[in-house]
Amino acid sequence: MTTSHSDGLSRRLLLGALAAMPALSGLLDATAAQAETGAPLASWNDGPAKQAILDFVRVTTDLSSKDFVPPEERIASFDQDGTLWVEHPVYSQIVFCLEHVPELVKAKPELKDRQPFKTVLSGDREAIAKLSMRDFFEIVLGTQSGMDVEAFREISRKWLAEAKHPRWGRLYTELVYQPMIEVLNYLRANGYRTFIATGGSAGFVREYSGKVYGIPPEQVCGTEQAFKYGYDKDHRPILTREPKLVLDNLEAGKIENFWLMYGRRPYTAFGNSSSDDLQMLEYVKAGGARLSVAVLHDDAKREYAYGPAQGLPNTSVGTFSQEMYDIAKKQGWIVVSMKDDWKRIFGFD
Amino acid sequence: MTTSHSDGLSRRLLLGALAAMPALSGLLDATAAQAETGAPLASWNDGPAKQAILDFVRVTTDLSSKDFVPPEERIASFDQDGTLWVEHPVYSQIVFCLEHVPELVKAKPELKDRQPFKTVLSGDREAIAKLSMRDFFEIVLGTQSGMDVEAFREISRKWLAEAKHPRWGRLYTELVYQPMIEVLNYLRANGYRTFIATGGSAGFVREYSGKVYGIPPEQVCGTEQAFKYGYDKDHRPILTREPKLVLDNLEAGKIENFWLMYGRRPYTAFGNSSSDDLQMLEYVKAGGARLSVAVLHDDAKREYAYGPAQGLPNTSVGTFSQEMYDIAKKQGWIVVSMKDDWKRIFGFD
Repeated sequence: MTTSHSDGLSRRLLLGALAAMPALSGLLDATAAQAETGAPLASWNDGPAKQAILDFVRVTTDLSSKDFVPPEERIASFDQDGTLWVEHPVYSQIVFCLEHVPELVKAKPELKDRQPFKTVLSGDREAIAKLSMRDFFEIVLGTQSGMDVEAFREISRKWLAEAKHPRWGRLYTELVYQPMIEVLNYLRANGYRTFIATGGSAGFVREYSGKVYGIPPEQVCGTEQAFKYGYDKDHRPILTREPKLVLDNLEAGKIENFWLMYGRRPYTAFGNSSSDDLQMLEYVKAGGARLSVAVLHDDAKREYAYGPAQGLPNTSVGTFSQEMYDIAKKQGWIVVSMKDDWKRIFGFD
Repeated sequence: MTTSHSDGLSRRLLLGALAAMPALSGLLDATAAQAETGAPLASWNDGPAKQAILDFVRVTTDLSSKDFVPPEERIASFDQDGTLWVEHPVYSQIVFCLEHVPELVKAKPELKDRQPFKTVLSGDREAIAKLSMRDFFEIVLGTQSGMDVEAFREISRKWLAEAKHPRWGRLYTELVYQPMIEVLNYLRANGYRTFIATGGSAGFVREYSGKVYGIPPEQVCGTEQAFKYGYDKDHRPILTREPKLVLDNLEAGKIENFWLMYGRRPYTAFGNSSSDDLQMLEYVKAGGARLSVAVLHDDAKREYAYGPAQGLPNTSVGTFSQEMYDIAKKQGWIVVSMKDDWKRIFGFD
């Protein structure tokens, strides 16, 4: 009974039908191939945000500029959820993890009556939506542990190749913001190395970062659990994902762990969440002639609208507080209005 | 009294006189500029080790080979101490840290009677040499904590620009193995990205990895302590090094943390220590047509000789056990004899 209930729940939680799809690789190659042609940032409307990005690149790459940055120091950091791809109505990786809760509970029945698993199994969407990020971390550690690293890669790849977003009926990896793909390409064309700094699991994001964003796995910094070296039954060495958090990339953890992994302050950072990007954006901006950019989701028609900054609806996913908005203005960050600054949202628009 | 005693000790511990030196940068640029000219691996004698490296590169980069590796997957990992540069008579970073123990004890007098600080302050070289790696980690955490990340970079750079190895009277960064510099260059010339996986602090090694090895800071994985975000008295955001270990890169930690940071199994790995490189080399070799290389220090005349493998002297620094030697032979790793395989040891030879 638990199983059939769980199966039904699993489907509901996917928030959309899973359908047979062509291999992911073809699609992703096409996305990555959208290199710069003609004028840079073609999907951006003229305005202060676009101009600030162009100006930043100009002054940091012009040898005669007082703000010139040597090529080996050109580091750019990007949040993922809500900055590079859609994060509503719920973070994609959470959808991926929730789907695996029923099989986890089947293997460990004692979790059935423990939070947050009990809430997930209840199927109560409103209660699930109210779970905290710490609850989600527990779900992530529960569903992504005890397996070989290669097995996890396989499960991630399979999900990414099949699962679709309920609103657009497209793969999650198609729901990347075309204007941001152009920023990544433009920065790289000017000698910047691009990095992802995400609250999500690095191991999940690495499965598509290369093909979708042109960012190699080693340049993805994320929340990460421990790995344990050991041997399988044939005495072959294996690495197993352990239910222990090593890098917690929420809040200030994002810049703390960026420094731990890469040892430098980025020259530019892009983010959108006041709970998880504020310190990164603030630290980058404090480094001198650097560029911090916060993306404001104010386009309910083409994507979503949420704040609560500027009177936008308040949601628990990807919160952009009025406090961060005020800090951005005071410290001279750039706030991007998706509605006004972006000509189109997606590559398929 | 403590101060003058400490000062004297500090000098002794440096194991050599500090002298005014020309800026580090000129020298390092020259080292990095030693790119491949003519035949690859010019400082290697013909033999099975050189041939294995050439063969590995050939079969993994030839499109018609069954073992062809796509460029984006070409990852090579290198231990540092004893593999890329000299580690005897004591790890360079330990010399750097021991020098700072007196000032640490001055700031926190309660450490004076606590181990391992008491032993360090005693000046008893034999007792210091017997400290365990865990003791050294405590010294590292003690001497590298409580300071801003930028301040630590400055201290590291200053030491690296001045401190000299007692035997050669040269900067530590000059004591890199020329044959290994050629391996790094040769791999990169064939599309490999080169990484360091060290038991030392990533933040220390990153200060010279680019200029000495051509390896950018973000491709250095090392033991690392926590960083804490906060504000200075002028409310400017700062990151402070904390006395807490986050990544422990000893023993199996080296491959566990390599996966955590980069998410992949390298195609080739180079190491030398049975305590800290064995699992990395074993895991790489278990991945199929891959190359694991262990460097055996068997050249007391030109460098040092230590094992205890093959009857070489047993030392506590960079131990190469007979057990690892036997595993290497059984699993098909390549063991490099510094005496027989290397025409010269250093770039200045």
